[in-house]
Amino acid sequence: MRILVTNDDGITAPGLRELVNTLSEKHEVLVVAPSQEASATGHAITIRLPIWVKEMKIDDKFLGYSVMGTPADCVKLGLDVFSKGKVDLILSGINRGPNLGTDIIYSGTVSGALEGALQGVPSMAISMCDFDDPKYETGAKVAEKLVDEFPWELLPEFCAINVNVPDLPYEEIKGFRVTRQSRRRYRDYFEARRDPYGNTYYWMLGDVIEDDTSPDSDYLAVKEGYVSITPITIFLTAEDVYKELKRRMKW
Amino acid sequence: MRILVTNDDGITAPGLRELVNTLSEKHEVLVVAPSQEASATGHAITIRLPIWVKEMKIDDKFLGYSVMGTPADCVKLGLDVFSKGKVDLILSGINRGPNLGTDIIYSGTVSGALEGALQGVPSMAISMCDFDDPKYETGAKVAEKLVDEFPWELLPEFCAINVNVPDLPYEEIKGFRVTRQSRRRYRDYFEARRDPYGNTYYWMLGDVIEDDTSPDSDYLAVKEGYVSITPITIFLTAEDVYKELKRRMKW
Repeated sequence: MRILVTNDDGITAPGLRELVNTLSEKHEVLVVAPSQEASATGHAITIRLPIWVKEMKIDDKFLGYSVMGTPADCVKLGLDVFSKGKVDLILSGINRGPNLGTDIIYSGTVSGALEGALQGVPSMAISMCDFDDPKYETGAKVAEKLVDEFPWELLPEFCAINVNVPDLPYEEIKGFRVTRQSRRRYRDYFEARRDPYGNTYYWMLGDVIEDDTSPDSDYLAVKEGYVSITPITIFLTAEDVYKELKRRMKW
Repeated sequence: MRILVTNDDGITAPGLRELVNTLSEKHEVLVVAPSQEASATGHAITIRLPIWVKEMKIDDKFLGYSVMGTPADCVKLGLDVFSKGKVDLILSGINRGPNLGTDIIYSGTVSGALEGALQGVPSMAISMCDFDDPKYETGAKVAEKLVDEFPWELLPEFCAINVNVPDLPYEEIKGFRVTRQSRRRYRDYFEARRDPYGNTYYWMLGDVIEDDTSPDSDYLAVKEGYVSITPITIFLTAEDVYKELKRRMKW
Protein backbone atom coordinates (compact mmCIF):
# COMPACT_ATOMS: atom_id res chain seq x y z
CA MET A 1 0.00 0.00 0.00
CA ARG A 2 1.00 3.62 -0.46
CA ILE A 3 0.73 5.31 2.91
CA LEU A 4 1.03 9.01 3.72
CA VAL A 5 2.24 9.65 7.27
CA THR A 6 1.88 12.91 9.17
CA ASN A 7 1.72 13.89 12.84
CA ASP A 8 1.51 16.92 15.12
CA ASP A 9 4.59 16.33 17.27
CA GLY A 10 6.88 17.27 14.39
CA ILE A 11 8.76 15.31 11.74
CA THR A 12 11.63 14.32 14.04
CA ALA A 13 9.36 12.95 16.79
CA PRO A 14 10.16 9.36 17.84
CA GLY A 15 6.51 8.24 17.48
CA LEU A 16 6.50 9.10 13.78
CA ARG A 17 9.87 7.47 13.17
CA GLU A 18 8.86 4.24 14.90
CA LEU A 19 5.70 4.13 12.79
CA VAL A 20 7.60 4.79 9.56
CA ASN A 21 10.27 2.18 10.30
CA THR A 22 7.65 -0.49 11.00
CA LEU A 23 5.41 0.28 8.04
CA SER A 24 8.27 0.63 5.56
CA GLU A 25 9.01 -3.10 5.78
CA LYS A 26 5.88 -3.94 3.79
CA HIS A 27 4.58 -0.64 2.41
CA GLU A 28 5.61 2.42 0.45
CA VAL A 29 5.64 5.29 2.96
CA LEU A 30 5.61 9.03 2.22
CA VAL A 31 6.24 11.34 5.19
CA VAL A 32 4.93 14.92 5.12
CA ALA A 33 4.93 16.38 8.63
CA PRO A 34 5.25 19.67 10.48
CA SER A 35 8.77 21.03 10.94
CA GLN A 36 8.06 21.63 14.61
CA GLU A 37 5.60 20.63 17.28
CA ALA A 38 2.05 21.54 16.25
CA SER A 39 0.07 20.07 19.15
CA ALA A 40 -3.34 21.59 19.90
CA THR A 41 -3.45 23.29 16.51
CA GLY A 42 -6.88 21.78 15.91
CA HIS A 43 -7.88 21.82 12.27
CA ALA A 44 -5.95 24.98 11.42
CA ILE A 45 -4.75 25.50 7.87
CA THR A 46 -2.27 28.06 6.58
CA ILE A 47 -3.89 30.39 4.09
CA ARG A 48 -2.51 33.84 5.01
CA LEU A 49 1.16 32.83 4.97
CA PRO A 50 3.34 30.95 2.54
CA ILE A 51 4.17 27.39 3.57
CA TRP A 52 7.89 26.55 3.49
CA VAL A 53 8.90 22.96 2.76
CA LYS A 54 12.29 21.29 3.11
CA GLU A 55 13.47 17.78 2.42
CA MET A 56 14.41 16.20 5.72
CA LYS A 57 17.28 13.79 6.07
CA ILE A 58 18.25 11.79 9.15
CA ASP A 59 21.61 9.97 9.11
CA ASP A 60 21.95 10.94 5.44
CA LYS A 61 18.73 9.06 4.61
CA PHE A 62 15.69 10.88 3.19
CA LEU A 63 12.91 10.80 5.81
CA GLY A 64 10.29 13.04 4.20
CA TYR A 65 9.06 16.58 3.69
CA SER A 66 9.29 18.97 6.60
CA VAL A 67 6.53 21.59 6.42
CA MET A 68 6.25 24.91 8.23
CA GLY A 69 2.55 24.37 8.75
CA THR A 70 -0.15 22.29 10.38
CA PRO A 71 -1.04 18.59 10.07
CA ALA A 72 -3.97 19.52 7.78
CA ASP A 73 -1.56 21.51 5.56
CA CYS A 74 0.72 18.45 5.42
CA VAL A 75 -2.05 16.14 4.26
CA LYS A 76 -3.18 18.59 1.56
CA LEU A 77 0.41 19.11 0.36
CA GLY A 78 1.15 15.40 0.51
CA LEU A 79 -1.81 14.54 -1.69
CA ASP A 80 -1.54 17.45 -4.13
CA VAL A 81 2.22 17.96 -4.46
CA PHE A 82 4.39 15.14 -3.13
CA SER A 83 2.54 11.88 -3.77
CA LYS A 84 3.29 10.40 -7.13
CA GLY A 85 -0.02 8.67 -7.73
CA LYS A 86 -2.82 7.46 -5.52
CA VAL A 87 -2.45 7.33 -1.73
CA ASP A 88 -4.24 4.31 -0.22
CA LEU A 89 -4.13 5.30 3.42
CA ILE A 90 -3.25 8.26 5.64
CA LEU A 91 -1.83 7.76 9.14
CA SER A 92 -1.42 10.56 11.64
CA GLY A 93 0.85 9.79 14.60
CA ILE A 94 2.01 8.05 16.61
CA ASN A 95 1.12 10.86 19.00
CA ARG A 96 2.79 11.37 22.33
CA GLY A 97 -0.23 11.40 24.66
CA PRO A 98 -3.88 10.31 24.34
CA ASN A 99 -6.59 11.86 22.17
CA LEU A 100 -9.71 10.90 24.09
CA GLY A 101 -13.06 12.49 24.89
CA THR A 102 -13.68 16.16 24.24
CA ASP A 103 -9.93 16.75 23.80
CA ILE A 104 -10.01 15.53 20.25
CA ILE A 105 -11.48 18.78 18.94
CA TYR A 106 -8.12 20.44 19.75
CA SER A 107 -5.98 17.66 18.38
CA GLY A 108 -3.63 18.23 15.46
CA THR A 109 -3.18 14.46 15.21
CA VAL A 110 -6.90 13.85 14.80
CA SER A 111 -7.24 16.74 12.34
CA GLY A 112 -4.59 15.10 10.14
CA ALA A 113 -6.87 12.07 9.85
CA LEU A 114 -10.04 14.14 9.39
CA GLU A 115 -8.35 16.09 6.59
CA GLY A 116 -7.55 12.77 4.93
CA ALA A 117 -11.20 11.74 5.30
CA LEU A 118 -12.32 15.01 3.74
CA GLN A 119 -10.00 14.34 0.81
CA GLY A 120 -11.59 10.91 0.34
CA VAL A 121 -8.70 8.77 1.61
CA PRO A 122 -9.15 6.15 4.39
CA SER A 123 -7.42 7.68 7.40
CA MET A 124 -6.39 6.89 10.95
CA ALA A 125 -5.10 8.95 13.86
CA ILE A 126 -3.06 6.96 16.37
CA SER A 127 -1.96 8.01 19.86
CA MET A 128 -0.12 6.45 22.78
CA CYS A 129 -1.88 7.02 26.10
CA ASP A 130 1.18 8.23 27.95
CA PHE A 131 3.30 11.36 27.82
CA ASP A 132 6.43 10.11 29.52
CA ASP A 133 8.48 7.86 27.22
CA PRO A 134 5.54 5.98 25.65
CA LYS A 135 5.97 2.49 24.19
CA TYR A 136 5.83 3.51 20.53
CA GLU A 137 6.84 -0.01 19.48
CA THR A 138 3.44 -1.17 20.79
CA GLY A 139 1.70 1.60 18.83
CA ALA A 140 3.60 0.71 15.68
CA LYS A 141 2.53 -2.94 15.93
CA VAL A 142 -1.07 -1.87 16.51
CA ALA A 143 -0.87 0.42 13.48
CA GLU A 144 0.55 -2.38 11.34
CA LYS A 145 -2.21 -4.76 12.39
CA LEU A 146 -4.90 -2.18 11.65
CA VAL A 147 -3.39 -1.27 8.29
CA ASP A 148 -3.50 -4.95 7.32
CA GLU A 149 -6.70 -6.12 9.03
CA PHE A 150 -9.06 -3.22 9.71
CA PRO A 151 -12.17 -3.46 7.48
CA TRP A 152 -11.41 -0.21 5.63
CA GLU A 153 -14.29 -0.90 3.23
CA LEU A 154 -16.73 -0.21 6.10
CA LEU A 155 -15.37 3.31 6.54
CA PRO A 156 -17.50 5.63 4.39
CA GLU A 157 -16.39 8.84 2.77
CA PHE A 158 -15.76 11.72 5.21
CA CYS A 159 -15.04 9.28 8.07
CA ALA A 160 -11.78 8.31 9.77
CA ILE A 161 -10.79 6.27 12.83
CA ASN A 162 -9.28 7.67 16.01
CA VAL A 163 -7.11 5.01 17.65
CA ASN A 164 -5.77 5.21 21.21
CA VAL A 165 -3.28 2.64 22.47
CA PRO A 166 -2.69 1.82 26.16
CA ASP A 167 0.95 2.25 27.18
CA LEU A 168 1.64 -1.46 27.63
CA PRO A 169 3.94 -4.03 26.06
CA TYR A 170 2.15 -5.40 22.95
CA GLU A 171 1.62 -8.85 24.52
CA GLU A 172 -0.28 -7.27 27.40
CA ILE A 173 -2.82 -5.46 25.21
CA LYS A 174 -6.16 -7.17 25.88
CA GLY A 175 -7.60 -6.61 22.42
CA PHE A 176 -9.40 -4.05 20.28
CA ARG A 177 -12.67 -2.31 21.10
CA VAL A 178 -14.87 -0.11 18.91
CA THR A 179 -15.84 2.91 21.00
CA ARG A 180 -17.59 6.27 21.08
CA GLN A 181 -15.89 9.61 21.80
CA SER A 182 -16.53 10.13 25.50
CA ARG A 183 -17.60 13.16 27.51
CA ARG A 184 -14.26 13.28 29.34
CA ARG A 185 -13.42 16.95 29.77
CA TYR A 186 -11.19 19.54 31.34
CA ARG A 187 -11.69 22.72 33.25
CA ASP A 188 -9.26 25.35 32.04
CA TYR A 189 -7.83 28.09 34.13
CA PHE A 190 -5.18 30.70 33.62
CA GLU A 191 -2.14 31.88 35.48
CA ALA A 192 -1.51 35.60 35.01
CA ARG A 193 2.06 36.96 34.89
CA ARG A 194 3.70 40.25 34.10
CA ASP A 195 6.56 40.64 31.63
CA PRO A 196 9.55 42.89 32.49
CA TYR A 197 7.82 45.75 30.59
CA GLY A 198 4.62 45.66 32.62
CA ASN A 199 2.44 43.76 30.13
CA THR A 200 0.15 40.98 31.34
CA TYR A 201 0.27 37.51 29.86
CA TYR A 202 -1.41 34.24 30.72
CA TRP A 203 -0.54 30.56 30.72
CA MET A 204 -3.38 28.14 30.07
CA LEU A 205 -3.66 25.20 32.45
CA GLY A 206 -6.28 22.47 32.78
CA ASP A 207 -7.53 19.69 35.03
CA VAL A 208 -9.74 16.75 34.11
CA ILE A 209 -13.08 17.42 35.81
CA GLU A 210 -15.20 14.69 34.27
CA ASP A 211 -14.18 11.19 33.29
CA ASP A 212 -16.54 9.00 31.36
CA THR A 213 -16.53 5.30 32.07
CA SER A 214 -19.66 4.32 30.16
CA PRO A 215 -19.13 0.91 28.53
CA ASP A 216 -18.82 2.35 25.01
CA SER A 217 -16.35 5.10 25.92
CA ASP A 218 -12.89 5.55 24.40
CA TYR A 219 -11.56 6.33 27.86
CA LEU A 220 -12.77 3.10 29.48
CA ALA A 221 -11.40 0.91 26.69
CA VAL A 222 -7.89 2.26 27.19
CA LYS A 223 -8.21 2.17 30.97
CA GLU A 224 -9.07 -1.53 30.75
CA GLY A 225 -6.10 -2.29 28.49
CA TYR A 226 -7.85 -2.33 25.11
CA VAL A 227 -6.96 -0.42 21.97
CA SER A 228 -9.80 2.06 21.43
CA ILE A 229 -11.04 2.54 17.86
CA THR A 230 -13.53 5.40 17.44
CA PRO A 231 -15.05 6.06 14.00
CA ILE A 232 -15.28 9.84 13.58
CA THR A 233 -16.79 12.15 10.99
CA ILE A 234 -16.26 15.69 9.77
CA PHE A 235 -20.02 16.31 9.94
CA LEU A 236 -20.92 18.15 13.11
CA THR A 237 -24.71 18.30 12.71
CA ALA A 238 -26.40 17.32 15.99
CA GLU A 239 -29.07 15.05 14.48
CA ASP A 240 -31.40 14.82 17.48
CA VAL A 241 -31.33 18.57 17.96
CA TYR A 242 -31.90 19.11 14.23
CA LYS A 243 -35.06 16.99 14.36
CA GLU A 244 -36.32 18.60 17.55
CA LEU A 245 -35.76 22.12 16.23
CA LYS A 246 -37.45 21.26 12.93
CA ARG A 247 -40.46 20.04 14.88
CA ARG A 248 -40.61 22.86 17.41
CA MET A 249 -39.51 26.05 15.71
CA LYS A 250 -42.45 28.07 14.50
CA TRP A 251 -40.52 30.31 12.12
CA MET B 1 -28.48 38.87 29.34
CA ARG B 2 -24.72 38.72 29.80
CA ILE B 3 -23.19 37.97 26.43
CA LEU B 4 -19.57 37.12 25.62
CA VAL B 5 -18.60 38.08 22.07
CA THR B 6 -15.61 36.77 20.16
CA ASN B 7 -14.71 36.31 16.49
CA ASP B 8 -11.89 35.21 14.21
CA ASP B 9 -11.53 38.32 12.06
CA GLY B 10 -9.92 40.21 14.95
CA ILE B 11 -11.23 42.60 17.58
CA THR B 12 -11.30 45.63 15.29
CA ALA B 13 -13.31 43.90 12.54
CA PRO B 14 -16.48 45.74 11.50
CA GLY B 15 -18.65 42.61 11.86
CA LEU B 16 -17.84 42.32 15.56
CA ARG B 17 -18.35 46.02 16.18
CA GLU B 18 -21.76 46.06 14.45
CA LEU B 19 -22.82 43.08 16.55
CA VAL B 20 -21.62 44.67 19.79
CA ASN B 21 -23.29 47.99 19.05
CA THR B 22 -26.62 46.33 18.35
CA LEU B 23 -26.57 43.95 21.32
CA SER B 24 -25.37 46.58 23.79
CA GLU B 25 -28.70 48.40 23.57
CA LYS B 26 -30.44 45.66 25.56
CA HIS B 27 -27.70 43.42 26.94
CA GLU B 28 -24.47 43.48 28.90
CA VAL B 29 -21.74 42.64 26.39
CA LEU B 30 -18.18 41.49 27.12
CA VAL B 31 -15.78 41.39 24.16
CA VAL B 32 -12.77 39.06 24.21
CA ALA B 33 -11.38 38.63 20.71
CA PRO B 34 -8.14 37.92 18.86
CA SER B 35 -5.78 40.87 18.40
CA GLN B 36 -5.42 40.00 14.73
CA GLU B 37 -7.13 37.97 12.05
CA ALA B 38 -7.32 34.31 13.08
CA SER B 39 -9.32 32.88 10.17
CA ALA B 40 -8.88 29.17 9.42
CA THR B 41 -7.30 28.55 12.80
CA GLY B 42 -9.76 25.72 13.42
CA HIS B 43 -10.05 24.76 17.04
CA ALA B 44 -6.46 25.66 17.90
CA ILE B 45 -5.61 26.64 21.45
CA THR B 46 -2.42 28.23 22.73
CA ILE B 47 -0.68 25.97 25.22
CA ARG B 48 3.01 26.23 24.30
CA LEU B 49 3.17 30.03 24.36
CA PRO B 50 2.04 32.67 26.79
CA ILE B 51 -1.11 34.55 25.76
CA TRP B 52 -0.78 38.34 25.84
CA VAL B 53 -3.88 40.39 26.57
CA LYS B 54 -4.45 44.14 26.22
CA GLU B 55 -7.43 46.32 26.92
CA MET B 56 -8.67 47.69 23.62
CA LYS B 57 -10.10 51.18 23.28
CA ILE B 58 -11.70 52.69 20.22
CA ASP B 59 -12.42 56.44 20.25
CA ASP B 60 -11.39 56.45 23.92
CA LYS B 61 -14.16 53.97 24.74
CA PHE B 62 -13.34 50.53 26.15
CA LEU B 63 -14.26 47.91 23.54
CA GLY B 64 -12.93 44.75 25.14
CA TYR B 65 -9.92 42.48 25.66
CA SER B 66 -7.59 41.99 22.74
CA VAL B 67 -5.92 38.56 22.92
CA MET B 68 -2.83 37.29 21.13
CA GLY B 69 -4.48 33.94 20.59
CA THR B 70 -7.28 32.00 18.94
CA PRO B 71 -11.08 32.27 19.28
CA ALA B 72 -11.07 29.19 21.55
CA ASP B 73 -8.45 30.88 23.77
CA CYS B 74 -10.66 33.98 23.91
CA VAL B 75 -13.72 32.03 25.08
CA LYS B 76 -11.73 30.21 27.77
CA LEU B 77 -10.14 33.48 28.97
CA GLY B 78 -13.46 35.31 28.82
CA LEU B 79 -15.16 32.74 31.03
CA ASP B 80 -12.31 32.13 33.46
CA VAL B 81 -10.70 35.55 33.81
CA PHE B 82 -12.72 38.47 32.45
CA SER B 83 -16.39 37.70 33.12
CA LYS B 84 -17.56 38.83 36.48
CA GLY B 85 -20.23 36.22 37.07
CA LYS B 86 -22.22 33.91 34.85
CA VAL B 87 -22.24 34.30 31.07
CA ASP B 88 -25.66 33.52 29.55
CA LEU B 89 -24.68 33.34 25.90
CA ILE B 90 -21.58 33.27 23.69
CA LEU B 91 -21.64 34.80 20.20
CA SER B 92 -18.83 34.35 17.68
CA GLY B 93 -18.86 36.73 14.73
CA ILE B 94 -20.21 38.37 12.72
CA ASN B 95 -17.80 36.67 10.34
CA ARG B 96 -16.79 38.11 7.00
CA GLY B 97 -17.68 35.21 4.67
CA PRO B 98 -19.82 32.07 4.99
CA ASN B 99 -19.15 29.03 7.16
CA LEU B 100 -21.01 26.34 5.24
CA GLY B 101 -20.50 22.66 4.44
CA THR B 102 -17.19 20.97 5.08
CA ASP B 103 -15.50 24.37 5.52
CA ILE B 104 -16.70 24.67 9.08
CA ILE B 105 -14.03 22.28 10.38
CA TYR B 106 -11.43 24.97 9.56
CA SER B 107 -13.45 27.85 10.94
CA GLY B 108 -12.21 29.90 13.85
CA THR B 109 -15.66 31.49 14.11
CA VAL B 110 -17.36 28.12 14.53
CA SER B 111 -14.71 26.93 16.98
CA GLY B 112 -15.48 29.94 19.18
CA ALA B 113 -19.06 28.69 19.47
CA LEU B 114 -18.04 25.04 19.94
CA GLU B 115 -15.67 26.06 22.73
CA GLY B 116 -18.60 27.82 24.38
CA ALA B 117 -20.68 24.65 24.03
CA LEU B 118 -17.90 22.59 25.58
CA GLN B 119 -17.82 25.02 28.52
CA GLY B 120 -21.58 24.53 28.98
CA VAL B 121 -22.76 27.93 27.72
CA PRO B 122 -25.39 28.29 24.94
CA SER B 123 -23.39 29.48 21.93
CA MET B 124 -23.84 30.71 18.38
CA ALA B 125 -21.48 31.31 15.46
CA ILE B 126 -22.79 33.86 12.97
CA SER B 127 -21.44 34.60 9.48
CA MET B 128 -22.36 36.82 6.55
CA CYS B 129 -22.36 34.99 3.23
CA ASP B 130 -20.28 37.54 1.38
CA PHE B 131 -16.65 38.61 1.53
CA ASP B 132 -16.90 41.98 -0.17
CA ASP B 133 -18.43 44.61 2.11
CA PRO B 134 -21.11 42.37 3.70
CA LYS B 135 -24.30 43.82 5.15
CA TYR B 136 -23.36 43.38 8.81
CA GLU B 137 -26.43 45.42 9.86
CA THR B 138 -28.55 42.52 8.56
CA GLY B 139 -26.44 40.03 10.50
CA ALA B 140 -26.71 42.10 13.67
CA LYS B 141 -30.52 42.19 13.41
CA VAL B 142 -30.59 38.44 12.83
CA ALA B 143 -28.34 37.93 15.86
CA GLU B 144 -30.57 40.13 17.99
CA LYS B 145 -33.68 38.23 16.94
CA LEU B 146 -32.03 34.88 17.69
CA VAL B 147 -30.70 36.04 21.06
CA ASP B 148 -34.24 37.04 22.02
CA GLU B 149 -36.34 34.35 20.31
CA PHE B 150 -34.29 31.23 19.62
CA PRO B 151 -35.46 28.35 21.85
CA TRP B 152 -32.14 28.07 23.70
CA GLU B 153 -33.64 25.54 26.10
CA LEU B 154 -33.74 23.02 23.22
CA LEU B 155 -29.97 23.23 22.78
CA PRO B 156 -28.43 20.51 24.95
CA GLU B 157 -25.01 20.59 26.57
CA PHE B 158 -22.08 20.32 24.12
CA CYS B 159 -24.18 21.75 21.24
CA ALA B 160 -24.12 25.15 19.55
CA ILE B 161 -25.76 26.70 16.50
CA ASN B 162 -23.96 27.73 13.33
CA VAL B 163 -25.84 30.60 11.68
CA ASN B 164 -25.25 31.82 8.13
CA VAL B 165 -26.94 34.97 6.86
CA PRO B 166 -27.56 35.79 3.17
CA ASP B 167 -26.04 39.10 2.16
CA LEU B 168 -29.37 40.90 1.71
CA PRO B 169 -31.13 43.87 3.29
CA TYR B 170 -32.97 42.58 6.40
CA GLU B 171 -36.43 43.11 4.82
CA GLU B 172 -35.48 40.83 1.93
CA ILE B 173 -34.51 37.86 4.13
CA LYS B 174 -37.15 35.20 3.45
CA GLY B 175 -37.05 33.65 6.91
CA PHE B 176 -35.15 31.18 9.06
CA ARG B 177 -34.48 27.53 8.23
CA VAL B 178 -33.07 24.76 10.43
CA THR B 179 -30.49 22.91 8.32
CA ARG B 180 -27.82 20.25 8.24
CA GLN B 181 -24.11 20.85 7.54
CA SER B 182 -23.81 20.08 3.83
CA ARG B 183 -21.24 18.14 1.82
CA ARG B 184 -20.11 21.29 -0.01
CA ARG B 185 -16.35 20.98 -0.44
CA TYR B 186 -13.20 22.32 -2.00
CA ARG B 187 -10.31 20.86 -3.92
CA ASP B 188 -7.08 22.39 -2.71
CA TYR B 189 -4.03 22.93 -4.79
CA PHE B 190 -0.73 24.66 -4.28
CA GLU B 191 1.31 27.20 -6.16
CA ALA B 192 5.06 26.67 -5.68
CA ARG B 193 7.43 29.64 -5.58
CA ARG B 194 11.07 30.20 -4.78
CA ASP B 195 12.31 32.81 -2.32
CA PRO B 196 15.37 34.96 -3.18
CA TYR B 197 17.57 32.47 -1.28
CA GLY B 198 16.52 29.43 -3.29
CA ASN B 199 14.04 27.94 -0.79
CA THR B 200 10.69 26.61 -1.99
CA TYR B 201 7.42 27.79 -0.54
CA TYR B 202 3.79 27.20 -1.39
CA TRP B 203 0.55 29.13 -1.40
CA MET B 204 -2.63 27.18 -0.74
CA LEU B 205 -5.52 27.78 -3.13
CA GLY B 206 -8.91 26.12 -3.47
CA ASP B 207 -11.94 25.74 -5.70
CA VAL B 208 -15.42 24.53 -4.78
CA ILE B 209 -15.79 21.15 -6.47
CA GLU B 210 -19.04 19.97 -4.94
CA ASP B 211 -22.07 21.98 -3.97
CA ASP B 212 -24.87 20.39 -2.05
CA THR B 213 -28.40 21.53 -2.75
CA SER B 214 -30.29 18.86 -0.84
CA PRO B 215 -33.38 20.39 0.79
CA ASP B 216 -31.92 20.25 4.31
CA SER B 217 -28.55 21.77 3.39
CA ASP B 218 -27.09 24.93 4.93
CA TYR B 219 -25.92 25.97 1.47
CA LEU B 220 -29.37 25.79 -0.15
CA ALA B 221 -31.04 27.75 2.65
CA VAL B 222 -28.70 30.69 2.15
CA LYS B 223 -28.87 30.42 -1.63
CA GLU B 224 -32.66 30.72 -1.42
CA GLY B 225 -32.49 33.78 0.84
CA TYR B 226 -33.06 32.12 4.22
CA VAL B 227 -30.97 32.39 7.36
CA SER B 228 -29.47 28.93 7.90
CA ILE B 229 -29.39 27.59 11.47
CA THR B 230 -27.41 24.35 11.91
CA PRO B 231 -27.26 22.72 15.33
CA ILE B 232 -23.72 21.36 15.75
CA THR B 233 -21.97 19.21 18.33
CA ILE B 234 -18.43 18.65 19.55
CA PHE B 235 -18.97 14.89 19.39
CA LEU B 236 -17.49 13.48 16.20
CA THR B 237 -18.48 9.82 16.62
CA ALA B 238 -19.94 8.50 13.35
CA GLU B 239 -22.91 6.64 14.85
CA ASP B 240 -23.82 4.50 11.83
CA VAL B 241 -20.23 3.42 11.37
CA TYR B 242 -19.90 2.72 15.09
CA LYS B 243 -22.87 0.35 14.96
CA GLU B 244 -21.72 -1.36 11.78
CA LEU B 245 -18.18 -1.87 13.10
CA LYS B 246 -19.52 -3.23 16.39
CA ARG B 247 -21.58 -5.73 14.43
CA ARG B 248 -18.94 -6.73 11.91
CA MET B 249 -15.57 -6.64 13.61
CA LYS B 250 -14.53 -10.06 14.80
CA TRP B 251 -11.80 -8.87 17.17
